[in-house]
Amino acid sequence: METKSKNRNLKVIIVGGVAGGASCAARLRRLDEKAEILMVERGPYVSYANCGLPYHVGGTIEKESSLLVATEQTFREQFAIDVRTRCEVVGISAAKKTVDLNYLVTGEATTEKYDKLVLSPGAAPIRPPLPGIDLPGIFSVRTVPDARNIREWLDRDTEDRSGMHSYTGFQTVMPAKRAVVIGGGFIGLEMVENLTHRGLEVTLIEKLNQVMPPLDPEMALLVERYMVKHGVHLELNDGVAGFEQSADGSLEVLTSSGKRHPADIVILAIGVRPETALAQMAGIEIGQRGGIRVDEQMRTSDPDIFAVGDAVEVKDFVTGQWTLIPLAGPANRQGRIAADVIAGRDSRFRGTQGTSICQIFEGVIASTGASEKLLTQLGDTGFEKIYLYPNSHAGYYPGAKYLAMKIIFRKSDGRLLGAQVLGEDGVPSRINAFAMAIQMGLTIYELEESELAYAPPFGSAKDPVNFAGMVAADILHGDMPLSHWNAVDGGFLLDVRNPQELAVESVPGAVNIPLPQLRTRLGELPRDREILVICRSGQRAYYATRILLQNGFKARTVAGGMLSRSMLVSS
Amino acid sequence: METKSKNRNLKVIIVGGVAGGASCAARLRRLDEKAEILMVERGPYVSYANCGLPYHVGGTIEKESSLLVATEQTFREQFAIDVRTRCEVVGISAAKKTVDLNYLVTGEATTEKYDKLVLSPGAAPIRPPLPGIDLPGIFSVRTVPDARNIREWLDRDTEDRSGMHSYTGFQTVMPAKRAVVIGGGFIGLEMVENLTHRGLEVTLIEKLNQVMPPLDPEMALLVERYMVKHGVHLELNDGVAGFEQSADGSLEVLTSSGKRHPADIVILAIGVRPETALAQMAGIEIGQRGGIRVDEQMRTSDPDIFAVGDAVEVKDFVTGQWTLIPLAGPANRQGRIAADVIAGRDSRFRGTQGTSICQIFEGVIASTGASEKLLTQLGDTGFEKIYLYPNSHAGYYPGAKYLAMKIIFRKSDGRLLGAQVLGEDGVPSRINAFAMAIQMGLTIYELEESELAYAPPFGSAKDPVNFAGMVAADILHGDMPLSHWNAVDGGFLLDVRNPQELAVESVPGAVNIPLPQLRTRLGELPRDREILVICRSGQRAYYATRILLQNGFKARTVAGGMLSRSMLVSS
Repeated sequence: METKSKNRNLKVIIVGGVAGGASCAARLRRLDEKAEILMVERGPYVSYANCGLPYHVGGTIEKESSLLVATEQTFREQFAIDVRTRCEVVGISAAKKTVDLNYLVTGEATTEKYDKLVLSPGAAPIRPPLPGIDLPGIFSVRTVPDARNIREWLDRDTEDRSGMHSYTGFQTVMPAKRAVVIGGGFIGLEMVENLTHRGLEVTLIEKLNQVMPPLDPEMALLVERYMVKHGVHLELNDGVAGFEQSADGSLEVLTSSGKRHPADIVILAIGVRPETALAQMAGIEIGQRGGIRVDEQMRTSDPDIFAVGDAVEVKDFVTGQWTLIPLAGPANRQGRIAADVIAGRDSRFRGTQGTSICQIFEGVIASTGASEKLLTQLGDTGFEKIYLYPNSHAGYYPGAKYLAMKIIFRKSDGRLLGAQVLGEDGVPSRINAFAMAIQMGLTIYELEESELAYAPPFGSAKDPVNFAGMVAADILHGDMPLSHWNAVDGGFLLDVRNPQELAVESVPGAVNIPLPQLRTRLGELPRDREILVICRSGQRAYYATRILLQNGFKARTVAGGMLSRSMLVSS
Repeated sequence: METKSKNRNLKVIIVGGVAGGASCAARLRRLDEKAEILMVERGPYVSYANCGLPYHVGGTIEKESSLLVATEQTFREQFAIDVRTRCEVVGISAAKKTVDLNYLVTGEATTEKYDKLVLSPGAAPIRPPLPGIDLPGIFSVRTVPDARNIREWLDRDTEDRSGMHSYTGFQTVMPAKRAVVIGGGFIGLEMVENLTHRGLEVTLIEKLNQVMPPLDPEMALLVERYMVKHGVHLELNDGVAGFEQSADGSLEVLTSSGKRHPADIVILAIGVRPETALAQMAGIEIGQRGGIRVDEQMRTSDPDIFAVGDAVEVKDFVTGQWTLIPLAGPANRQGRIAADVIAGRDSRFRGTQGTSICQIFEGVIASTGASEKLLTQLGDTGFEKIYLYPNSHAGYYPGAKYLAMKIIFRKSDGRLLGAQVLGEDGVPSRINAFAMAIQMGLTIYELEESELAYAPPFGSAKDPVNFAGMVAADILHGDMPLSHWNAVDGGFLLDVRNPQELAVESVPGAVNIPLPQLRTRLGELPRDREILVICRSGQRAYYATRILLQNGFKARTVAGGMLSRSMLVSS
């Protein structure tokens, strides 16, 4: 028999009906059948798939209705939740425990009392006050109406131009329309892909020196090259200064460097900022990173007010630092936890490790845990990094593509700190393995022994995850002293690739002895200098390093070989 | 500086040059540059991709040379290993530490002394002494020559028949050729797929009541239905009694039940048996399961003889039982460990958890850890099981397919014991997450909190792995008392699906109250009986169970709903 809830007539108001808010409402109902639950949402829809918006713009998700995961009706009928959409919170009194509501359609206003309040307001797209920011044709991508507006803007254009040409009787080729996407994070990249997919010519402008902030710059470089190969115009290290409208109605995007990029549509994807207006009304604490401060139980500084989702700061599970992670997975888990705690349970949020994945054309970009960049910012120098380029599955089975992996681990104990994985095949299965490993505080020694799914279409007998563990363990065991490309200057460079490979690309000044000849040509190498060994990816260099060390030479393998050099050394 | 090896002139003989043996040889060379390493292999090739053989037969892997991962030359040149192929071990003296070799091509015989001996003889396809077993057209699939023989047999047939018809001047449709595959394990299923792919009509005969032994029978049933849907003739519960040759040269397979299956080719994939002839020569211990007994360091009962790969018994990491796991991943890791130990390092094999994956047409079958069947055999009753049918990725993004998952966990502490995952999309990323979880002894509570890769093309904000954790936790928290289909007889069955769904399929005797009406129709339900709630997959039944329990009813959710019923209840 179920114990009856003590909070029989608990009244809970949830502000925000997407992701965290919706999860919280549904979970709370399952735990407390008698609670009075009111969920208010400023927009027209609850529980919609905001992660799907770029794909709806691109046409991959055809119907807008597909984005509506659960309707108001579902919440009312299945969960007996009082849902009010187009309803804005205009005041909160933490002292009186009341919320002032304003109904956007009717203009009506009411005040509701709560026992517990859950804030799930999300994060708003950053919209800097630049000249021309409000010109028609400049869009953010946050809500279903945003996506609808973008589609209408693009379709309207199509209709106009089709009309112009239809009298000729010929099938007309549409002139390439020009889009400018501002910001190279997840949404920016997804919009680049989807606008390209719709046939637009896309320029991506990014203020930083790289796209995809969770990646380190050298890994992001692979993404950047890949995008350029797919026809994207990329402008890094350049901020947007303003927008102007041309005589023909099209836009121009002006940048800090003085460039002008013509555009028929502009997408702002600069990032998001936690919505903290409600928190400020309620007088609850805001953290250093600008998000609502909560404890492990999603409780704010007011014990009767909880906050979840993109608006809150969370602890980075790997670094222990406060951070903002506007992702759907953590938001949903936080919603559940807030519901649990309100229902009297001892659930806790363990923090986030920032696992993320993004599709760009046929490529997939994924990361979990800390980047080198982040660790360096925190003053952490106790880590080592490796680069690997294994096949996504057995090389002899068709369709294998190489993965580019960067793995970061602690030198002292081998603990896995972060993984970045890029490729066109097999990325999700590896990033999930690394994500589980980081969750459990695994070491790279344990990755050596992981027993992952292997059959020729899916992996290799030594999976890339095992391989990462083995290489890292070789370093920590002292079997493979490592060097990096930024530290090779002045060293004695030994290239153990074969001559055909050198003909394609070689390193100035490197001595070439192909690996099969190394044992018989040791006399050509210096005994008084450290020998830095290079090959294509690092594997043969490791074999050579072993031979050299055991023959009394000083030697290091250059991490990632020529494949990493192309990312790290400007030519 | 590297410490010089103490075993400067160590002589190591490795018997068997594939997977475990080849890994051992290469690793040992990296650890000990001075050791004398002799690798002998009975067949013509070392380090070939035996996992790729079925795909070479099917034509997916076109060239035989693709299967040769590393050649004799590679081993000689890169690793300075003395490789001898077509060389058989005909005697071992553990007392004298010698091995007698017979060179199959020249007929020459030599005796070699060893300091350490590594046995990696693999496992041989079982070839029962049935009448007609040696008739032409009956093949096993273990070696490159096996695959070549099968291809030649199939191609020869094609040429004959093409020749017959070529004079007509019409393009001829080949009559479907008939293959019988005996045995429904990995190799059997891969051969079924590949022969079907080549255009043959395939019958699969399996003695047991299910295909794919690592799965439980109800999960295997989904695979069986899938194969039948793809045109495979399936004969379960029937053994092979013998083979006969017809007048036209084709074969007939006779079964225990008296059936006769005509066949132009027969593939034996009954299973494999550890090759222990060498171990017997050496007088070392054989375990209860018929494999060579080794310790955690891959050392046999003779401290100077090691054994690795399919020929050894290993500890099941989950159950603690000795088992035979003839898979490439563990074989490769064992080879490395033997090399480490021989080189004086303290590496240990942690056992195996039997992670496996198999492609069958567009479907993927994967499992890791213990099955219900295995736990039951061991007398373990302290586990619970759940069935889930989540989307492989966000339902609103095109291409989502449902996954069928069975998750087994310990009732007392929530420890994850096993996972079986089937589907056409997203299987590897989930089985790898479960495999990592089992490696680390994770509980289902920790699966709730896993932070896996989510973007609409790859997953959901609540990943199927999280979802499994949440459902299991609901059970262990007592929020969702569970029932199974084999225990519903005599219970009060409440179906909370909507009437349209019932029109397609319903359970005799079940009362229907659609979930949205449940709160208002509680009066129709008995308070003195346990109510067993069903829906399509179990999710709405869970919601209904929560409503019922909190309103003072006794209620249980029937695990997996109608989707599981179709697997568990014969209709």
